[in-house]
Amino acid sequence: MYIKNYDEIIKSTTNEENLKVKKWILDCIEAALRSVEPSVAVKSALKIINNKLNIRGLSFNLNSFEHIYVIGGGKASGAMAESIEQLLGNKITEGIVNVPEGTEGNYHTEIIQINPASHPIPNENGLHGAKRMIEIAKKAGEKDLVIVLISGGGSALMPYPADNITLQEMQNLTNLLLKSGATIEEINAVRKHISQFKGGQLAEAIYPATALTLIISDVVGDRLDTIASGPTAPDETTFKDAYNVLKRYNLLDKTPENIINRIKRGLSYEIPETPKSGNKIFKKVHNIIIANNRMALIGAMKEAVKLGLNTVILTSFLEGEAREVGTVLGSIVREIYNYNSVIKKPAMILAGGETTVTVRGQGKGGRNQELALSAAIKIRGLEGVGIASLGSDGIDGVTDAAGGIVDSTTVEKGLENGMNPLEYLDNNDTYSFLSQTGDLIITGPTGINVNDLIFICIS
Amino acid sequence: MYIKNYDEIIKSTTNEENLKVKKWILDCIEAALRSVEPSVAVKSALKIINNKLNIRGLSFNLNSFEHIYVIGGGKASGAMAESIEQLLGNKITEGIVNVPEGTEGNYHTEIIQINPASHPIPNENGLHGAKRMIEIAKKAGEKDLVIVLISGGGSALMPYPADNITLQEMQNLTNLLLKSGATIEEINAVRKHISQFKGGQLAEAIYPATALTLIISDVVGDRLDTIASGPTAPDETTFKDAYNVLKRYNLLDKTPENIINRIKRGLSYEIPETPKSGNKIFKKVHNIIIANNRMALIGAMKEAVKLGLNTVILTSFLEGEAREVGTVLGSIVREIYNYNSVIKKPAMILAGGETTVTVRGQGKGGRNQELALSAAIKIRGLEGVGIASLGSDGIDGVTDAAGGIVDSTTVEKGLENGMNPLEYLDNNDTYSFLSQTGDLIITGPTGINVNDLIFICIS
Repeated sequence: MYIKNYDEIIKSTTNEENLKVKKWILDCIEAALRSVEPSVAVKSALKIINNKLNIRGLSFNLNSFEHIYVIGGGKASGAMAESIEQLLGNKITEGIVNVPEGTEGNYHTEIIQINPASHPIPNENGLHGAKRMIEIAKKAGEKDLVIVLISGGGSALMPYPADNITLQEMQNLTNLLLKSGATIEEINAVRKHISQFKGGQLAEAIYPATALTLIISDVVGDRLDTIASGPTAPDETTFKDAYNVLKRYNLLDKTPENIINRIKRGLSYEIPETPKSGNKIFKKVHNIIIANNRMALIGAMKEAVKLGLNTVILTSFLEGEAREVGTVLGSIVREIYNYNSVIKKPAMILAGGETTVTVRGQGKGGRNQELALSAAIKIRGLEGVGIASLGSDGIDGVTDAAGGIVDSTTVEKGLENGMNPLEYLDNNDTYSFLSQTGDLIITGPTGINVNDLIFICIS
Repeated sequence: MYIKNYDEIIKSTTNEENLKVKKWILDCIEAALRSVEPSVAVKSALKIINNKLNIRGLSFNLNSFEHIYVIGGGKASGAMAESIEQLLGNKITEGIVNVPEGTEGNYHTEIIQINPASHPIPNENGLHGAKRMIEIAKKAGEKDLVIVLISGGGSALMPYPADNITLQEMQNLTNLLLKSGATIEEINAVRKHISQFKGGQLAEAIYPATALTLIISDVVGDRLDTIASGPTAPDETTFKDAYNVLKRYNLLDKTPENIINRIKRGLSYEIPETPKSGNKIFKKVHNIIIANNRMALIGAMKEAVKLGLNTVILTSFLEGEAREVGTVLGSIVREIYNYNSVIKKPAMILAGGETTVTVRGQGKGGRNQELALSAAIKIRGLEGVGIASLGSDGIDGVTDAAGGIVDSTTVEKGLENGMNPLEYLDNNDTYSFLSQTGDLIITGPTGINVNDLIFICIS
């Protein structure tokens, strides 16, 4: 059971119809998380039969490799490493994965080193690990296999600035970019060109060995060049793009000198570009997504079918300001509730993605809690409707909750306690509201990292 | 044809697949608007057979009435009056409807007076008309029928403050309330209690005559007590509610004295409450919605079926910040585009409602244009996807456009012209963007008023 406050959620639900709906939702949440647990993901994707490693139609003869190395990093990469070692045992020559500090004790491996690093601000230990990975990658020869384990957070956990750029300089630039209004694509264009790891450069180091990258995606749309900054994926951006971003946001003067120098050397072709698609190195690279948001939603669908519900994935690309997304989802619920449109009741509608919160207030909350409370306003009084939104990693904002689960009575319960939901939303204080109405979902960190999951149930 | 720039839209679309999709959308827009044209709505709802007026299972023997009166107001009420007069002719004794100034010449009636009034700020002519309606209502006796024609804008077009409250005082209070952050429900609670027309009070005046109210709804969810402030619908709010709203938003000191006095007299039961549900007067009232947003969407569905498309109403309750709504709808498109989830391609997905725009910039645009441009960002590069959003009244913001129609190339066309769509959204300047990419929809005022319509097509 991932949900730790299951009994409290059930106890706080007095209406019979809502209770039924909430139980269905909680069952589907459990199923969704279970289906993308890193160990489950590794073991359902990889099958070893007669010394052949089979994955998604590919087949590798394990006896044909002289060495097998395992490297990588991310929030789920410790659990992935553990499972890989259980599968391949001492066929693995050596390995190292960077995991978030404090989680290293959760994983039990004998061959693959579990190296704690910091996140979201990179540290020396992360750098040390990334250097070690590049050493292994370069050492690997034509007859070797390098298994790369990538998951969300990998970009910060595996920092490796190029030239003599320091971690501090890299961090200063990231902060400047984050404040500038640059898009995440623009920020990544810069970051890839001051790194010697990101943007396909790890793949370059691995070549001519075979690279098998197993990916747990935390990126909406699963872009390979975006997840953990795509260390084994072709990079479509250039030094020119990186320079233009700094120029566009007036950051050329503020950018640390080492960084500017590198980008200028790139512009004048003194140093090579990141590898592009079509580059021969990618013929020996296999990037395979073994878990993502949509697979979690499919896990939930299977459970919903077992429960006898009609079910549909509305979207696995959900984005937008959390409270507005909640309003739109509430609008769709009202249509189904009134007209059985889109899908017939009883129904479980699933969505996934990653919303954003524009912080304007002083309160405590997270994007999933905002989405849930906002949706609660739209489903006020609609008996037999429940909506849950949670971060699959179990962490929503800076709270101990994973998200919220609301029903037709949530707003009423709040008002009875003197809480106006709109005021709590305006103050970004949804945790305070939902904790008093008994509508939080508490899981603690799950070790799963496939973005946010939304469950809408109408009985 | 409602769409005046059909040829320009077609000409600006170079991609074959997008062209197909846009033609489908434009056909469905025409069909949607046609289906809720006020004259069509009146004539499809009302049938006269053997001197019996039949409407939604009700049947009135026209010979049993001594007089038939026609009163009402709203943006569509002129066209409704014209159709009613065509149907009932000189069976109508007399009548008056308040319509927006400047549109009075559009309607041809001989018995029912078309009275121009102002909107959104009420004027003396509106008051004059409303007084006349109450006189007619009071004159009507037990054997009379009063047909009330209600549509959006009716609240401002039929002002009738109670006691000696002036239009100016009423307007001052409305302005205070609009600035205070009070919800529309709260504002209406106050307005109904300083009026002698709204909140069921017209129904009270009509009693003991029979009231048949024909309604074209411009309110999401079609609440009878909200459309035109519900002149013939039971009011669930009280003088106490009205007082509490003024208190909650610290407006007691600023409210004009005449208004405060009336509300205090209401609190001490010196004057009667607005009529509540259960009141015997409502036994002789029939409130019937003859056109609304959902009926327009059903009109579009029928056309989509004819075109051979799969089709579904996603919601007719759509609300939220326009650009965020566009993002969410774009997220749903990406799911259908990639996975055929929710509905199979080729598909026409329909939505309706009313979004909002938080104005932060200096530009020119409207909620439908913001929704369309924001959605364009999400469907960038997805060939064979088109999204249109328009106000059914043909008016989006303070522009001459009804809305926008975007496809996979909209963002690209903008960027090529040096326009960043995010900047244009931030500056609320979507009209400037979409006019340059050739993606506006221009209809001029349509005389239709059933909120906004959204069309998503994926080939």
